[in-house]
Amino acid sequence: MARKDLLDLASLDRSEIDHLLEQAVPFKEVFTRSVKKVPALKGKSVLMLFYEPSTRTHSSFEVAAKRLSADVTNFDVAHSSVVKGESVRETVETLQAMRTDYIVVRHGRSGLPAMIASQTKASVVNAGDGAHAHPTQGLLDAFTLKEVFPEPEGRRVLIVGDILHSRVARSTSKVLKKLGVEVAYLGPGSLLPRTCPLGIPRFTDYEEAMRWKPDVVYLLRVQMERQEAQFFPSLREYHRVYGMTHERLKRIEDAGIWLMHPGPVNRGVELCDQAMDYSRSLINTQVENGIAVRMAVLYWLKPREG
Amino acid sequence: MARKDLLDLASLDRSEIDHLLEQAVPFKEVFTRSVKKVPALKGKSVLMLFYEPSTRTHSSFEVAAKRLSADVTNFDVAHSSVVKGESVRETVETLQAMRTDYIVVRHGRSGLPAMIASQTKASVVNAGDGAHAHPTQGLLDAFTLKEVFPEPEGRRVLIVGDILHSRVARSTSKVLKKLGVEVAYLGPGSLLPRTCPLGIPRFTDYEEAMRWKPDVVYLLRVQMERQEAQFFPSLREYHRVYGMTHERLKRIEDAGIWLMHPGPVNRGVELCDQAMDYSRSLINTQVENGIAVRMAVLYWLKPREG
Amino acid sequence: MARKDLLDLASLDRSEIDHLLEQAVPFKEVFTRSVKKVPALKGKSVLMLFYEPSTRTHSSFEVAAKRLSADVTNFDVAHSSVVKGESVRETVETLQAMRTDYIVVRHGRSGLPAMIASQTKASVVNAGDGAHAHPTQGLLDAFTLKEVFPEPEGRRVLIVGDILHSRVARSTSKVLKKLGVEVAYLGPGSLLPRTCPLGIPRFTDYEEAMRWKPDVVYLLRVQMERQEAQFFPSLREYHRVYGMTHERLKRIEDAGIWLMHPGPVNRGVELCDQAMDYSRSLINTQVENGIAVRMAVLYWLKPREG
Repeated sequence: MARKDLLDLASLDRSEIDHLLEQAVPFKEVFTRSVKKVPALKGKSVLMLFYEPSTRTHSSFEVAAKRLSADVTNFDVAHSSVVKGESVRETVETLQAMRTDYIVVRHGRSGLPAMIASQTKASVVNAGDGAHAHPTQGLLDAFTLKEVFPEPEGRRVLIVGDILHSRVARSTSKVLKKLGVEVAYLGPGSLLPRTCPLGIPRFTDYEEAMRWKPDVVYLLRVQMERQEAQFFPSLREYHRVYGMTHERLKRIEDAGIWLMHPGPVNRGVELCDQAMDYSRSLINTQVENGIAVRMAVLYWLKPREG
Repeated sequence: MARKDLLDLASLDRSEIDHLLEQAVPFKEVFTRSVKKVPALKGKSVLMLFYEPSTRTHSSFEVAAKRLSADVTNFDVAHSSVVKGESVRETVETLQAMRTDYIVVRHGRSGLPAMIASQTKASVVNAGDGAHAHPTQGLLDAFTLKEVFPEPEGRRVLIVGDILHSRVARSTSKVLKKLGVEVAYLGPGSLLPRTCPLGIPRFTDYEEAMRWKPDVVYLLRVQMERQEAQFFPSLREYHRVYGMTHERLKRIEDAGIWLMHPGPVNRGVELCDQAMDYSRSLINTQVENGIAVRMAVLYWLKPREG
Repeated sequence: MARKDLLDLASLDRSEIDHLLEQAVPFKEVFTRSVKKVPALKGKSVLMLFYEPSTRTHSSFEVAAKRLSADVTNFDVAHSSVVKGESVRETVETLQAMRTDYIVVRHGRSGLPAMIASQTKASVVNAGDGAHAHPTQGLLDAFTLKEVFPEPEGRRVLIVGDILHSRVARSTSKVLKKLGVEVAYLGPGSLLPRTCPLGIPRFTDYEEAMRWKPDVVYLLRVQMERQEAQFFPSLREYHRVYGMTHERLKRIEDAGIWLMHPGPVNRGVELCDQAMDYSRSLINTQVENGIAVRMAVLYWLKPREG
């Protein structure tokens, strides 16, 4: 049964997640064809509403929509002085009046996509809201993991970095847990959540975390533009304590551990240069899968009639 | 008989206005379908040339063009250092050489779209030029009024605000007068035109204006970015003297008066919060009708051959 | 035989250049039709990657791609803080993972499009890289010249301005020489290349250059934003010494000499006002031909499979 919106992953049950991940498979298969496009959403309109700039996520959704043959319009809030002074509510009423079919929204405030969804008949896709959720990131990570481990139950993913403020950590943990994957967190004590409703082990020490024997190390991006850097003595220090250094890379290679990162990578911070060429890196695969998964999401959602 | 350009409403006769408003009806009907798109301008190209940013008008024209199946290209003058130094004439020669079919232009200088139209075979649509004209705004306002009053002759519309510098007031007044609607102005004496060729009553006092018994109160946007604010002691004072306050809202509700505004609204300035939910507000309807009317305009115009 | 990328003109042989110029003819013919579009690249995707803003070149490629029925996505590096911090290599890996068919790239650094091309299966078109090359400009200039002189062998083109830093001069000279056209340079000694491998005559004096009897005077744009201006005492002085002044215009008119410029023109610097209406000016024709030639290039290139 289709839903109207995708706001977070908490509300999706296992069968819905399975359905989305299965649906992404034929969409990804389309990318190997000469014409990487299907007519599934021909005549439908997708409006991009990005209050925070994000070249990659924006492009990924835009390419996904176009590969479904939808029309994409950018509602350019970032460069508009007028709309900045306008409350989001007025913007949403405008979009509702424009009768777009899908709205892809990114905003720094948690819960804003849900508010928008409640006021419009369009299907709303949350492309990241504050520290709350980034559901398509969670889905694409799950999809990527399943390509490597078709039976992911019991596999172990160690997420490293600023867990506390990360919507990626939140959404990816949620979907992985639903698939029966074991998740653990590694980061500075001040950047780990104090309580973990999902019963997720928390480590502050790299060695200790490795003894947990992860199948995948998932490095979060250090959000330098959000001044997270203040939590670390220095970026160099971050790299030394939590980064994928050259030494650690050799160790995970020997152990056959996979590497993930949501991108864009801060080289020399989360990853050493050599990690870019690591044979078990899934970073670029995540980008490709992001488009397939977003196609599956847009195709699955059903805007309200009328 | 089709025209090449839509530059202002003064040159359109009554039958042309009627034709455009009638043509917008089936286009609006398309919005209630699952696929909100018609192949009317398939293969045609629309170039957006916005020297002033305007997220809403830009999006409205872009969506209108795409619903007609046209291709839309943004000629990004706002972010281009090169083109800023270039005279408009060179830009127009470039556009003419690119052989686009339609040019939608917004510029701070009155008469600039007409100058462009004279130099290109493309159909030019004025999307607002200085204090001169905003013809599609006038048409969408007329269309919206006719939905409420199918026989608009003799109906009364009170336009409130900075009439003197408003291209919206100018274009909307013109088209309403052509439809036989009575128009009056209300605003500070310094912001009313000194003479009114169309014989439009002018009020400076709200009470006096209400005794004129309008069917519609049309609030203009206070253009804060254009420093119109200097004409008022304060925005609070503007709201108190000319805004739709909570008290006035109750009075127009009792009198069954409709509310219009071209958007985006400055809440607390032109309108109190409660006015956003006013049952006789046509503000969101204006947005929706804007797309239908712009589709009708693009469909009606005929670029010159060759 | 098709190539994967168009990076510069040095690597194209005469028959390839002839093929591209011939292919542009039917594409230009399309512009005279009511529907200026062909289905040649239907379902293919073109990604615009402009690290330097360029409204004209960007629009020209975008219109060209759309007239081939391709889908165009703008990878908005210019306004993205995230991507600025990211190395180009990561961006390219992202684009490769997105599996776009064509990448049109402009960058201030010479050789960057070649680096990108080596790392992606997409066809890469260089839309200008530093002082290195601007191959589609060279091709459109050659196409424009051939419209005037169908047998261009032995014709003489005088290129005027800052030759040393100009990728236009470089690419246009290269393609013209391959067509058997004679090329000469005119400019301040400090802005002429010290050695000319192609055996191109260099002049510093206008009179002397005119005695060489050119068929075309090709004025380069003074790149004021790149502070080239520092090389001249003043723009006025530049106009006096190397510009197309009113007097010189009369002389080239008498001699039947054609005028070219890559645009956008700095009026009063490279050209006097009257030159804008010069009957033998090819400036606007260059713009139109730019789209046709870019269509031919995109149509000719073949992305690698898979």
